[in-house]
Amino acid sequence: MPATLIAFQGERGSFSEEATYKLLGRRVRVLPCETFAATFASVAQGRASYCLVPIENTLAGSVYENFDLLLSNRLHIVGEVSLRIVHNLIAMPGTKRKDVRQVYSHPVALAQCSRFFARNPQVERVTFYDTAGSVKMLAETHPPGAAAIASRIAAEVYHARILSAHLEDHRENYTRFFLLSKTARISRNANKVSIVFSTRNVPGALYKCLSVFALRDIDLTKMESRPLRGRPWEYFFYIDFLGNVHEDRCQKALAHLSEVANFLRVLGCYEGAKR
Amino acid sequence: MPATLIAFQGERGSFSEEATYKLLGRRVRVLPCETFAATFASVAQGRASYCLVPIENTLAGSVYENFDLLLSNRLHIVGEVSLRIVHNLIAMPGTKRKDVRQVYSHPVALAQCSRFFARNPQVERVTFYDTAGSVKMLAETHPPGAAAIASRIAAEVYHARILSAHLEDHRENYTRFFLLSKTARISRNANKVSIVFSTRNVPGALYKCLSVFALRDIDLTKMESRPLRGRPWEYFFYIDFLGNVHEDRCQKALAHLSEVANFLRVLGCYEGAKR
Repeated sequence: MPATLIAFQGERGSFSEEATYKLLGRRVRVLPCETFAATFASVAQGRASYCLVPIENTLAGSVYENFDLLLSNRLHIVGEVSLRIVHNLIAMPGTKRKDVRQVYSHPVALAQCSRFFARNPQVERVTFYDTAGSVKMLAETHPPGAAAIASRIAAEVYHARILSAHLEDHRENYTRFFLLSKTARISRNANKVSIVFSTRNVPGALYKCLSVFALRDIDLTKMESRPLRGRPWEYFFYIDFLGNVHEDRCQKALAHLSEVANFLRVLGCYEGAKR
Repeated sequence: MPATLIAFQGERGSFSEEATYKLLGRRVRVLPCETFAATFASVAQGRASYCLVPIENTLAGSVYENFDLLLSNRLHIVGEVSLRIVHNLIAMPGTKRKDVRQVYSHPVALAQCSRFFARNPQVERVTFYDTAGSVKMLAETHPPGAAAIASRIAAEVYHARILSAHLEDHRENYTRFFLLSKTARISRNANKVSIVFSTRNVPGALYKCLSVFALRDIDLTKMESRPLRGRPWEYFFYIDFLGNVHEDRCQKALAHLSEVANFLRVLGCYEGAKR
């Protein structure tokens, strides 16, 4: 039986690939996709079994595009993983730490390593379209004195070397990813539920929706809102809560919510990431 | 007395400039700034009296960076305006509608006019860093057969002509802007309040915070969350509600909220935009 194929956005060696291995182990095959929309489509159209997409970073906030894609594609959340983002200085074999004059990476990664650049004023930062893509470029063109900032998996994939680890300014830098599937499946250890709903446009509507959880002591872990296109200043609300849809109190909360909300969809029930 | 100076992000002729004139009339002077951070700083450091910054678009969602800047800068919201985003096809005098072969604009504006490009397959879309900046470029370099997509104010500023209006796919395309000042000031017609708070990390904390409004029939118009840096998976919540901080029920709601929240700041009390 061929190994399961997992799609993600970005080049081989991305943080999404590192998160894929953390969640599923190393026996899966991976399918890099150019955009998040193409990543969702690869699963919707059956080219990949699952995709793994970032949903939230503890410094940058939510990946809003993926909330919109969760609603417009009918995929199901079947797993979750949280990855500590460790930025590494990576170069091809032969380039020493003291030879480095240019460092290539995605602008967000460069910005997250500002202390490294302050300590090393002789090193120029060069923006590139992708973290892992900058290591790929080093492997292909071998520019002298060049290094990249990327994941440890990127070093492995492109046979490069990690010159130093933990270049990031903030240690509390985590990204949370969802594993998505075309078919709904609830694992035995599922302890978390994600939903999306819209409220009636009346005062106190959101409060009434949240009361269905509070009245049953159900713990919300995340709430996000996104615009309802075509209805200015109305919103979809995305909520994650602790529980399992087979539990009586969760079933009652969702039945109660469907009474007070305009629209409700369960996006998945899955085992939450260790925090 | 010199006219009041208003800072905004982007080139002269931006939608922010159009919104500035809608809110304050044409007798103000304007100060274009390169980034949102520089726009906030120009007011914090006293170079401009006010700045006008976009906070939310009905298709694209919140301008998340500006929520973060509201918290990290101590500016006060003193006004609000909502602008219908109308995309115009603009060219320099002498270029006729039938001669247009390339259209320059910001990628978001190009994406919002996809029907125009579908109806005009002979026209190539060319991405540029800014909508108004693309009209500025036409005025400076006069490339033959070129046009831009931008605001009507951009046509005026660069002495260009509007070849056709309403290129946008969705009519329900509005952007809401805040007017920010270094000093707090509450106008006589103030009927809206913006606050930011963080909750204690206990189950039902957000519900308790929202109850201070619901129990007093205070209507929330917007809620946004942003990560609390350094405290993974905790959040700041931004809320707009209808009322005036001098009203008894609003004062009681805010006093009640400060009992149940970890942190609370009033960002401003101002006259809400007509919707």
